[in-house]
Order: sequence, then C-alpha cells, then structure tokens
Amino acid sequence: MRAFSQDFQSELYDLMKWRRDVRHFTPDPVDPELLRLCLDAFQMAPSVGLSEPWRIVNVNSLDARQKSLDNFKASNADALVGYEEGQADLYASLKLTGMRDAPVQLAIFCEEDTPKGSGLGAQTMPEMRRYSVVAAIMSFWLATRAYGLGLGWVSILDPIQLRTDLDLPDDWSLVAYLCVGWPKEETITPELETVGWEMRDAQLTKLIER
Amino acid sequence: MRAFSQDFQSELYDLMKWRRDVRHFTPDPVDPELLRLCLDAFQMAPSVGLSEPWRIVNVNSLDARQKSLDNFKASNADALVGYEEGQADLYASLKLTGMRDAPVQLAIFCEEDTPKGSGLGAQTMPEMRRYSVVAAIMSFWLATRAYGLGLGWVSILDPIQLRTDLDLPDDWSLVAYLCVGWPKEETITPELETVGWEMRDAQLTKLIER
Repeated sequence: MRAFSQDFQSELYDLMKWRRDVRHFTPDPVDPELLRLCLDAFQMAPSVGLSEPWRIVNVNSLDARQKSLDNFKASNADALVGYEEGQADLYASLKLTGMRDAPVQLAIFCEEDTPKGSGLGAQTMPEMRRYSVVAAIMSFWLATRAYGLGLGWVSILDPIQLRTDLDLPDDWSLVAYLCVGWPKEETITPELETVGWEMRDAQLTKLIER
Repeated sequence: MRAFSQDFQSELYDLMKWRRDVRHFTPDPVDPELLRLCLDAFQMAPSVGLSEPWRIVNVNSLDARQKSLDNFKASNADALVGYEEGQADLYASLKLTGMRDAPVQLAIFCEEDTPKGSGLGAQTMPEMRRYSVVAAIMSFWLATRAYGLGLGWVSILDPIQLRTDLDLPDDWSLVAYLCVGWPKEETITPELETVGWEMRDAQLTKLIER
C-alpha cells in the first residue's frame, strides 16, 4: 500500500499542466544516463496482456536523420495543400517539428505480431497493442518533463516510408517520432493556442450519461 | 518555468510503479467530486492539433451496464476458444474484468471526424486522434492512483456492439472501457505476472540504433 500526499497530488497536476509539446530546443546534449532514467518509464507502463510491444529506435545517424526529415518535409508539404488561403498561411508559419535541432530523436514502434502476452485482451481490439505503446510514451513524456526535458511528438510523417528507411520488420507499426532535448522556453499554454490555431475546451470532459 | 524536485521525481516513479490494472474493487462508492478532479486530467493531456477528440460516457444505468457485461462475457468466451489445454485453464481462471463490482464505469470514445484541430498532424496518421485519447486516459489513470483509486482497462469487448448498445454516433470509436473504484488490495506486481501468464522484460527498453 502506497499513499500519496496532497503536496504530491498537487505537483502531479502541475506536471501535467507544464507538460507541453516542445518544438524549440537548445543545442545542449542530453546526458545518456538521464535519457536511460526517463526510458525506465516504458517498463513501468501498462500493456495489454503484459505484451510490452514497444520497440524504441534511436534515430541518430546522419543518414537516418536526413531520411526522417525529408519524410516530414514531404508529408508537411502535402498537408499544406489541403488548407485554404488564411489557414494555409497560418499552417505554413507554424513550427511543427524539432527534428532540425533536437539532440535525441526516437522512433517508437509497436510490434504487432509479438507472441508476448499470448494475445490476451487483444483479440477483439488488436489496436490495444498500439494503445499500450501510447500509454508508455505518455509515461515517458511525463518523466522527461519532471527532469526538465522537453518532448515533441511528430506525426506528420509517412509511417510506412519511415519503417522502410529505418530498415525495420514489416509487422512494426510506427506509433510516434519523438524529439527530446532541453526546451528553449517553457510555458503552460499550448503553442497552437498561442498562435491561434485552436483552443482547449473544458466542456469536452463533461460526462455523457447512459 | 516550473522545476520539479528530486523528491517529486522519485515519487512520480513510485506512482508509475504502483499504478496497476485493478480488477478487484470494494463496494465503496467514489465521491463525484473526486471523480471530477481526476477527469480534469483529460483536459491537461496532449492531443494532435489540439483536437481533444475524447468523449467520456458514464455507463451507469442498469441496462447499459448489463449490455456491456454481456458484451464482455461473449467476447471472453470467444477468446477462450483460441487457447489450448493448460493455457485455456489458466485463462479461464483469470479475473479479467471488474465490471461486476466497479462503482464507476466509463466508456471512452474517440470522435474520428471532429473538425477541432482542422486535421493538423493527423493527415498521414489519422490514428493520432485515437492515440491522443489514450494519452488522456493514461493521464487520468495516474491521477486516479495518486488519489488512491484503482482503475482497470477492459478491452475484451466487441467495440461496434458497445457503440450500438450505448446509442452513440457512427464516427465514435471505442478506445477503452474503464472500471474505477477503491482497490481491494494494492501491489507493485502485475496480476498477470503473479498468476504466471506473462513476465515483464526490462530488455525491451533497450535502444535499437539507426
């Protein structure tokens, strides 16, 4: 039995408020021991049937980084085409990735066909394995922020192309491309809200009764 | 700028270690104000393009609970057929849901076609909206545990049947069915490990270099 104090509860909520999607990083490196400590959050995360389907790829070589950045550029150019005038201008002005400067870049995959867990809990909803990977990423994200690091989740990528470029097995699905480093600034407001793209809506946590 | 102390960092890791999937609940009710406080974690969670696609359904009526439990029973019976002898016996002996006794039961959906966020970040990976819902659920899970509550994520359900039974829109995807209440016991070891179904593997957080 482990109880948590009111002070801790309050600080946990502060952590969630200060956890932002970070796209502006300083050039300072991340100590590998600190990264390792944050990565421990993965093995504390829940996973369906204890399948632990996360596979963590350190995108570190010049070649792998360039291919990933090219993938982002192409996907982002395609996305821009879908917006009309004013919104297109705003979209084009957004900084949507820290891939050019983040010192640590991790591509997180889900091994869809892992025998681990023997399929428990994933027969009617096989997507549960990917959801387990997301739960682990969220744990990692909170851990990085507790240590003062920033994390940005890039999803403007062709997932099949990235898997091919990184030479990974066919049954691995890309879940996230994470940029990690020291944030240039820290804020409590999402960048997309600051620039006027979209606002948070507290009404959306209202319960729908059935 | 908000820095977190070493004590907090250490307690956050304790929280992640003590967060378990809970399937055994006491009959004690959950104070609606406490539940509301925990649900605030949703609006602090990250979401792709600030789309906030989570929709939270309070499965509370006798009819809705019965249909959900029937759904679990049918899905679980189907799953059992897929296991051979020894494993089937073990599977049949597992308590895989707290749906018979959890005082609070929430079905969490993703609104796939929400216009919120204008599709930013979800064009090459539309599954990002569902991943945002999972990130919010993980935040909620940690919040509930910080307040001493237990949460169990049930995925042995036919998601289309559940949406139909709860009379919800066609573009809402079931992400999770959550049982919430006061845990009968608390432990640091996953129940599936205790009963010998599967073990955690620390090797899986090793980085794959590219």
